Amino acid sequence: MMILQKIKSEGLAHLSYILGDGDEAIVIDPRRDCDVYLDIAARQGMRITHIFETHRNEDYVAGSLDLARLSGAVIHHGAAMAFAYGQSTREGDTFDLGDLRLRVLETPGHTMESISLVVTDRNFGGTPVGVFTGDALFVGDVGRTDFYPDREREVAGMLYDSIFNKLLPLGDQTIIYPAHGAGSVCGDNMASREFSTIGHERQHNPALQNTDRESFIDYKVAEHHDQPAYFRLMEHYNMEGAPPLGELPRPRPLTPEQVAQAVKQGAVIVDLRSPEAFAGAFIPGSLAMPLDMLPAYAGYLLDYEHDLILVPETLEQIPTAVRYLIRMGFERLPGYLRGGMHVWEISGRPYDRIGAVHASTLERRIKVNGAFTLLDVRKITEFTAEKRKAHLSGGFAGAPGRNRQGQAGCDILRQRTPRHHCRIDPEAAWL
Amino acid sequence: MMILQKIKSEGLAHLSYILGDGDEAIVIDPRRDCDVYLDIAARQGMRITHIFETHRNEDYVAGSLDLARLSGAVIHHGAAMAFAYGQSTREGDTFDLGDLRLRVLETPGHTMESISLVVTDRNFGGTPVGVFTGDALFVGDVGRTDFYPDREREVAGMLYDSIFNKLLPLGDQTIIYPAHGAGSVCGDNMASREFSTIGHERQHNPALQNTDRESFIDYKVAEHHDQPAYFRLMEHYNMEGAPPLGELPRPRPLTPEQVAQAVKQGAVIVDLRSPEAFAGAFIPGSLAMPLDMLPAYAGYLLDYEHDLILVPETLEQIPTAVRYLIRMGFERLPGYLRGGMHVWEISGRPYDRIGAVHASTLERRIKVNGAFTLLDVRKITEFTAEKRKAHLSGGFAGAPGRNRQGQAGCDILRQRTPRHHCRIDPEAAWL
Amino acid sequence: MMILQKIKSEGLAHLSYILGDGDEAIVIDPRRDCDVYLDIAARQGMRITHIFETHRNEDYVAGSLDLARLSGAVIHHGAAMAFAYGQSTREGDTFDLGDLRLRVLETPGHTMESISLVVTDRNFGGTPVGVFTGDALFVGDVGRTDFYPDREREVAGMLYDSIFNKLLPLGDQTIIYPAHGAGSVCGDNMASREFSTIGHERQHNPALQNTDRESFIDYKVAEHHDQPAYFRLMEHYNMEGAPPLGELPRPRPLTPEQVAQAVKQGAVIVDLRSPEAFAGAFIPGSLAMPLDMLPAYAGYLLDYEHDLILVPETLEQIPTAVRYLIRMGFERLPGYLRGGMHVWEISGRPYDRIGAVHASTLERRIKVNGAFTLLDVRKITEFTAEKRKAHLSGGFAGAPGRNRQGQAGCDILRQRTPRHHCRIDPEAAWL
Amino acid sequence: MMILQKIKSEGLAHLSYILGDGDEAIVIDPRRDCDVYLDIAARQGMRITHIFETHRNEDYVAGSLDLARLSGAVIHHGAAMAFAYGQSTREGDTFDLGDLRLRVLETPGHTMESISLVVTDRNFGGTPVGVFTGDALFVGDVGRTDFYPDREREVAGMLYDSIFNKLLPLGDQTIIYPAHGAGSVCGDNMASREFSTIGHERQHNPALQNTDRESFIDYKVAEHHDQPAYFRLMEHYNMEGAPPLGELPRPRPLTPEQVAQAVKQGAVIVDLRSPEAFAGAFIPGSLAMPLDMLPAYAGYLLDYEHDLILVPETLEQIPTAVRYLIRMGFERLPGYLRGGMHVWEISGRPYDRIGAVHASTLERRIKVNGAFTLLDVRKITEFTAEKRKAHLSGGFAGAPGRNRQGQAGCDILRQRTPRHHCRIDPEAAWL
Repeated sequence: MMILQKIKSEGLAHLSYILGDGDEAIVIDPRRDCDVYLDIAARQGMRITHIFETHRNEDYVAGSLDLARLSGAVIHHGAAMAFAYGQSTREGDTFDLGDLRLRVLETPGHTMESISLVVTDRNFGGTPVGVFTGDALFVGDVGRTDFYPDREREVAGMLYDSIFNKLLPLGDQTIIYPAHGAGSVCGDNMASREFSTIGHERQHNPALQNTDRESFIDYKVAEHHDQPAYFRLMEHYNMEGAPPLGELPRPRPLTPEQVAQAVKQGAVIVDLRSPEAFAGAFIPGSLAMPLDMLPAYAGYLLDYEHDLILVPETLEQIPTAVRYLIRMGFERLPGYLRGGMHVWEISGRPYDRIGAVHASTLERRIKVNGAFTLLDVRKITEFTAEKRKAHLSGGFAGAPGRNRQGQAGCDILRQRTPRHHCRIDPEAAWL
Repeated sequence: MMILQKIKSEGLAHLSYILGDGDEAIVIDPRRDCDVYLDIAARQGMRITHIFETHRNEDYVAGSLDLARLSGAVIHHGAAMAFAYGQSTREGDTFDLGDLRLRVLETPGHTMESISLVVTDRNFGGTPVGVFTGDALFVGDVGRTDFYPDREREVAGMLYDSIFNKLLPLGDQTIIYPAHGAGSVCGDNMASREFSTIGHERQHNPALQNTDRESFIDYKVAEHHDQPAYFRLMEHYNMEGAPPLGELPRPRPLTPEQVAQAVKQGAVIVDLRSPEAFAGAFIPGSLAMPLDMLPAYAGYLLDYEHDLILVPETLEQIPTAVRYLIRMGFERLPGYLRGGMHVWEISGRPYDRIGAVHASTLERRIKVNGAFTLLDVRKITEFTAEKRKAHLSGGFAGAPGRNRQGQAGCDILRQRTPRHHCRIDPEAAWL
Repeated sequence: MMILQKIKSEGLAHLSYILGDGDEAIVIDPRRDCDVYLDIAARQGMRITHIFETHRNEDYVAGSLDLARLSGAVIHHGAAMAFAYGQSTREGDTFDLGDLRLRVLETPGHTMESISLVVTDRNFGGTPVGVFTGDALFVGDVGRTDFYPDREREVAGMLYDSIFNKLLPLGDQTIIYPAHGAGSVCGDNMASREFSTIGHERQHNPALQNTDRESFIDYKVAEHHDQPAYFRLMEHYNMEGAPPLGELPRPRPLTPEQVAQAVKQGAVIVDLRSPEAFAGAFIPGSLAMPLDMLPAYAGYLLDYEHDLILVPETLEQIPTAVRYLIRMGFERLPGYLRGGMHVWEISGRPYDRIGAVHASTLERRIKVNGAFTLLDVRKITEFTAEKRKAHLSGGFAGAPGRNRQGQAGCDILRQRTPRHHCRIDPEAAWL
Repeated sequence: MMILQKIKSEGLAHLSYILGDGDEAIVIDPRRDCDVYLDIAARQGMRITHIFETHRNEDYVAGSLDLARLSGAVIHHGAAMAFAYGQSTREGDTFDLGDLRLRVLETPGHTMESISLVVTDRNFGGTPVGVFTGDALFVGDVGRTDFYPDREREVAGMLYDSIFNKLLPLGDQTIIYPAHGAGSVCGDNMASREFSTIGHERQHNPALQNTDRESFIDYKVAEHHDQPAYFRLMEHYNMEGAPPLGELPRPRPLTPEQVAQAVKQGAVIVDLRSPEAFAGAFIPGSLAMPLDMLPAYAGYLLDYEHDLILVPETLEQIPTAVRYLIRMGFERLPGYLRGGMHVWEISGRPYDRIGAVHASTLERRIKVNGAFTLLDVRKITEFTAEKRKAHLSGGFAGAPGRNRQGQAGCDILRQRTPRHHCRIDPEAAWL
């Protein structure tokens, strides 16, 4: 019995895989809450023997050490980086798994030690059936090459070589299994489709249409990518080995009194509710991070020095939020507001609201009366996108990553609902 | 192996039971989505042989017919009402179930054919171990006796006789298993504790402190109970036999366009989100019924002649809302707004908001400027509760059950968030 | 958000698929217990709009009608057969699903109206990304062509044309999604790997190495396939429309007395326990069908005219056995032996056992004393397999499909444990 | 919202409880795999604030330390024993939990520091509603008093005082919540019914019919109880604090070769399959412990110095077996035979079988030919039970707890199927 299962971590759009045949399985790029792999293996009667990290990830905490501890598996990395744990693997190394064979390709570019893993079925010839491409090649995009700022053309060239000289030659028939899907911070242009082949990418991946090495390099260095602050800790963890996770944290119920007390002692309030609920009533000073956007925003706006207090819509959101946060290294999760905003409101403590201006009203006001500042707090790539009329004329760009230390825009930023429709405080003078 | 399991239907606070020994089980007062009983029986290797209805329920659709069809069990009712299905059972009838014996007590008062079921363990003497009391005796309260308006003293007296002459004599050691817990429309004073005995109720149930028959009757006829409109259909269903449920309805995803179209054709929008989210943005004309309050409000405000379109906070709310609604007979559930309010908002369609006045602000305004009408839309029992200062001075009571046909208060009622803190439209002139 | 999920029905090794984008999804070759598709769609907020049957299946009951009733989807078949339900679709018909486009290919051979569905992503060119191949092309094998005995060369030629002239030209980069995996009765040589591409099959599928039309036809007509008796009802159901399933049957617990009574009235006992447990003690006359082999054996040995009584190892096996059986049209499932064989044994009723001869003992006995008949009851293809020494010298083939009406071997057959190691009744004279 | 939930550990028939009101909950006698309490508390939005151990348990590892670590709760014991962890609590101590109040009763007898916890509802008077009785009072039985062999009359008298002077005076209306149900090694006569009251026990508990102190003591000292070997480690753990559990062990799949290798190195094989399957084929030297009887037999026949290799019927049995074993302190669980007995059999390794003699045959043989020894390996209380003809005439009692070190009977014991019907090795001379 052969299995190949994709495990998607929503929000991060991180894709990991478990591949098994007979009584053995391997895992590629495991996430930190690694029970999912152990459960699949257990259901199949398989033991996990090898763990592969296609590269030192920067956007989440690798679960390799935890999984190795719990499964007895051996961890493998590319040889070009000095990891504090696991074993080095090199071009041409092979690993057998029942009837399957995995072969290592060194595919640097995104990082120096990036590897890809080619899968062949020994009962059906030596032609590749699939390849795990890590962050080298995605469906519809290729890996970022902005991590070595002073060597950017060099690493973009390395990625060209990895793709054009190693991956594409595997043959059109090769299915690709990348480490990310649409929504990841590791690429802006990935397809929402998560299945493709070398042949299809060769023909339709926009980046690969730059078949000339120099054009490809030019294409890559022209890209803009944000590097959220949390990347640094992720890189450190994934190089040195993350602290063991153990049981998942279980935030405890807090009364409004206890929440207020925690805030006094430095805790940050993360509000998981929808933008509409946040707009209806929120605790002054709290950060709006609707649950489904938490993985996208936490790394920009949170740090590791403060406790995080959650304000959930429902109790069911808590375990999901915890998984999202520990995957990014946020483990200081002492509690959550029990009973939701309602109990805060009836406790007599102050709460705030954010009004909304309907698009038609805003349009009218712009026409009638230009005497206000329109601050566009979206990402710079959204502000400047060419495909569509990307921003209102007269708008002023104030992207979140740029305004964290007290500039104008910061207050609105902290309270804004992270959706793209316009919400502006109705108490503002101009209304 | 003996089992006794309480199945609670949240919201309705309806309690049903499955009791089994060996390979047989019985179910008492099953709800309409009756898979839960079949699943428990299957896990225990038991067949359900008998279904008992302690009385003709008026607050939900009995699941007896569906459960009988799927299990082969026989349905039993009290003999004093002419049900169109099932069998009549009378005082003293006994049913054996492994080592257990059930004995029928006729305990009229709440309804004429109310029965209770006394449990004894044949290995441990003839003394009652427990009694299923239906709506005769609750933990902390007794059944309503307002269903026969012109015979109210008579039926309150019948309930007195049932409790004082039949239930209390079972002995202090008898555990009680009533048909409802706190939050039910079938009683205002039930304890939030769901375990008690005849002995404990005898000593501490407030209603039972009226040990004199006339005092008890006076106590009962002084009570105020609402009778939501949906009671009539429930009574009809539970007398004649409800239509078979079959698979649970699966509302389908709708675009804003499709929702708007449905409304044009008469559909009613039921918004399941929290009061804060509703206040932040809602579809004009929709009804705010936060999921956990849906069972309490649906029967007052919805009817059976219109399709219901749901606006959920998350997809996970849909199946729960469906169960809540079909238990009350609402089956016209064609769809829900997909993507939540967000997609409605960015579709360019109009949406509305409700402001909020903080209690301290309202207090100040009342002092400074009395030139507005304060409409209190809570239940009349909340308005007049003696235990605490129950309403703001100057407030005007406009309870929901009283103002449904166009009186002043109705519009605010339709949009109000059904929580007890004050929310008032900020567009109102006085603000 | 795009999804593509494979749903595998274990035992039958039947593969169905749900493919969705945005708020719409389609299902390909649904099975009868179709809640799985509705649940996936519900979790994604998708409505199922189309159901495709790649061909009139003969090995299971199609769930199309039930799924259409519950979802509102439209059913599509190939045009070359006169189905009593659904719509006809033809070469070149297209269906759009968010950014995806499906295009119909007529690919007859396995059946006359077989179709394949080509998937393209409209954001990434017109090149096929994948193709649903039904029973035309599997991973490592191709469809059976033995259903038109008097036209066998003609239909094998049609399959050749479908594969070589329609499927292979889609391009090496096309991922294939077939209707069966290894273990299906629809092909003996499928790979246990369930992921492949047109390019990989072109190079390594053994059947496709016969690139010459006549060689391919020769290859196909030389194959041997069994046609279990139940195929006839499946074909009838899938042509005319299967009866609606409704709730899954829930077999009830039976005492030994009740089981014995049912057998007297014609019921057949299906023993789901392991071969070892069956060998340890079994009810005389019962059929050994270990749960994981039930889908493989039920269609050969059971009929639709008798009630089936189950003897499970654990209660957890019952719902799985029920799903296996209703997928093949067996719905007369009144009950199961409660408490397992143990209660039968201590009821004082007779039970029987099957001894075992260790391979080494048998070898010795063959050498020492040839005076017994060695009856090999495995499949004829197992008996004659070339790859390995396939049977003991002196063994006599008595395959199950051949010996149902009283020939020698039949009694042993009915009691044999369907594993391939040798188990022989120790009461036999030669022991 | 008030909750009271009983958590039953099957096999051990251990009953623990979580009781909560508002945002706080307490746990009584938690088991070692304590996720169940954390999950219930999380679903209710409650924090666990206190853990009570009614006594130092001897039949399982208390989960108090693990639960305290994960929840932040404080552990409480009776004061009369010097625990290495937690706090001492004394007669009259009270703990408030929302509207509930718990009051400590010192109820020695089973152990010296046994406590009971009385529950009152502060909204409904001071009369007890329920009492957690630990191992002092069960439904239908009372606690064992055989743990202080040289003070047996003294401790039986202490139990009398605890029950008659402290528990019974709580009043007939008090519901009892004991620490064990039927099937526990802590009492032979418990009812299979798990709900009762002080009043019902007072009238019908056989032990309590000895209302005279001396009669009660006589009754108790006449009882026979086994003390399985594992009790010693449990007592040690529960006094000193058990080692933290962390993640549950995950036994890995083993090939027959690996199992054989492990056995060479001292591992013991525990066969979880049914008696019939074991009889059909088993690995020589393995111990038959059908999963549902594992908790009853493991403590008698296993020790803590050897690895345990499992032979399961299905993969689903593994996690259940792991929970059963770690609750009793067995943590050396490296692996299980993958593929079941089948793969062992076809590996060519030797396997053994156990025949069966039908009761009627045995009866005939006894009559015809007495020339054999009939060894009855059941418990001594089964052999001597008065209620029914408890053993065959001429049988010789050889109970498991008595014959562990090489006596006659031991070999049969090791291979016997632990059911009460007769199974005897057919290789025995007399057959």
